[in-house]
Amino acid sequence: MQVMIIGAAGMIGKKLARKILSDRSIGTRSVSRLTLVDIVAPQVDTFSEVEQVCVTADLSTDGAAKRLIASRPDVIFHLAAIVSSDAEADFEKGYLINLDGTRSLLEAIRLQSDTEPYCPKVVFTSSLAVFGVPLPDEIPDDFVLAPLSCYGTQKAIGELLLSDYSRRGFLDGIALRLPTICVRPGKPNKAASGFYSSIIREPLIGQEAILPVPRELRHWFASPRSAVGALLHAATIDLAPLGARRSLNLPGVSASVGEQIEALRRIAGTRATDLIKEVPDPAILRIVSSWPRAFSAERAKNLGFRAEESMDEIIQAHIADELGGTLN
Amino acid sequence: MQVMIIGAAGMIGKKLARKILSDRSIGTRSVSRLTLVDIVAPQVDTFSEVEQVCVTADLSTDGAAKRLIASRPDVIFHLAAIVSSDAEADFEKGYLINLDGTRSLLEAIRLQSDTEPYCPKVVFTSSLAVFGVPLPDEIPDDFVLAPLSCYGTQKAIGELLLSDYSRRGFLDGIALRLPTICVRPGKPNKAASGFYSSIIREPLIGQEAILPVPRELRHWFASPRSAVGALLHAATIDLAPLGARRSLNLPGVSASVGEQIEALRRIAGTRATDLIKEVPDPAILRIVSSWPRAFSAERAKNLGFRAEESMDEIIQAHIADELGGTLN
Repeated sequence: MQVMIIGAAGMIGKKLARKILSDRSIGTRSVSRLTLVDIVAPQVDTFSEVEQVCVTADLSTDGAAKRLIASRPDVIFHLAAIVSSDAEADFEKGYLINLDGTRSLLEAIRLQSDTEPYCPKVVFTSSLAVFGVPLPDEIPDDFVLAPLSCYGTQKAIGELLLSDYSRRGFLDGIALRLPTICVRPGKPNKAASGFYSSIIREPLIGQEAILPVPRELRHWFASPRSAVGALLHAATIDLAPLGARRSLNLPGVSASVGEQIEALRRIAGTRATDLIKEVPDPAILRIVSSWPRAFSAERAKNLGFRAEESMDEIIQAHIADELGGTLN
Repeated sequence: MQVMIIGAAGMIGKKLARKILSDRSIGTRSVSRLTLVDIVAPQVDTFSEVEQVCVTADLSTDGAAKRLIASRPDVIFHLAAIVSSDAEADFEKGYLINLDGTRSLLEAIRLQSDTEPYCPKVVFTSSLAVFGVPLPDEIPDDFVLAPLSCYGTQKAIGELLLSDYSRRGFLDGIALRLPTICVRPGKPNKAASGFYSSIIREPLIGQEAILPVPRELRHWFASPRSAVGALLHAATIDLAPLGARRSLNLPGVSASVGEQIEALRRIAGTRATDLIKEVPDPAILRIVSSWPRAFSAERAKNLGFRAEESMDEIIQAHIADELGGTLN
């Protein structure tokens, strides 16, 4: 089986590539070739018997999607997007990359069947940003699409296109609305959601972290490991039970900031939690207070999607995957 | 005030134009110029003091939207679309006209403010086809978008774009999900929904009509007069209360086919209803049985949108507007 990851230079894309290269299969099907695509050259640092092809390409440029799809991959992970704040700051670029790029990919797949039948599985990463306030405490599976950002609008449109192309038999698509990834590895960043990872990640290595919001604030999380697991699970299951509704809210952990900190204390003690400094930031609070607090995710659970059961598990996953399994 | 109707050669477009030309105003604002746009030359048969400009243009062709918007209309009614069956039969044409055409219009409006501020009101006709089974008996205002046709997908995407462009202040948009228009004037057509009008319209003028579905089948209706009224009402009201959710389910009449026929009998007697011949058509039944049966339409009602209260009123509107007010 040939697999392609578009957006392979991102955090999830890299982890997904490493996992496929290490397993040399997805589910029961072995992977013969993995094509890694991104606008910057994707790099892979794992030795593997799987043939690796790295391609630098921008889906939104003329002919790029067609050239990529000419190799007729069996499974395509489409993770490429510019992030929420960039899509809001540069209106045209956001629509170009996040809408036109996705549509070009779907069109290239549709047109590829002009020569001989072709219907790949397409796993698309969507976002909680397709939802907008007012939100219930727990969002049901069939909640209304009402994005409050360009990014959320572009992802919602991508979902609708993916469902329509699937309904018409041009591809076999699934859109996964990933929870906020926590603990995100790497350095602190300027994303409004950055503190959700920072308040765990930095104290675990003895560094200070800033908490800009009240401890009551609740949000929806899964580990990078769960996100990769969900992408791979989506690539293995029969999607027919989804019918024409190809978008799924994924399971996750609903936790308040206070519960995150309590979990950190249970695992790493007050030595860690004492490193969290409360510095209220009304701008960040305004953004994140409109975000979802929990999902039922029944459809996804019924299809076998799983995430961590608690914030403790999420922190343990971070320690295992990023810190070599132990705390200093 | 300058007004533009895109899709002015269609049934609703023509009626809307006539009403504006006859009233010479929309709400309290007088109309100085009415621009009628369609892919075939729109015609207007009403004498009016309003300046009339007729333009033959296809929004999906390069530069067409920009040329139209250069006149900076204050209110734009965007009714242009290819119909559901055509959008399904010709996938590329459907996306070109119904998605790219709409997006070109929104982009032309956005870019028009490069020279000086411009934020027109845009009234977009969306469709019940944005919803798909399973449907509740009464669809609430914030029901999930899950179209089961290319047309429904394209309309849902148009709604999302309109909301995002409104949120960003590029225009002041509203999308109206019109009920099925009944009684549609003119000749019988091949649309799956055609019989809903035929079984009223033909018997009222002494002609036979075919009923291809069981009398229990229920659907959601409004007269052409109500549809035009809703478009004009949308152009007059303050849209700020809609926030970022710019799409509205409009009020209508929920009636079974049996109730339609009973209303016809009350108004025109068994002489009319005896002209309805039951000829079951499983293909038509399969299509229309997945359509909505009723809507709560609370948001629209709260904003002052009104439709008929009964099928009797809908039939009386047809007799008044199309048959000179009396039955022979």
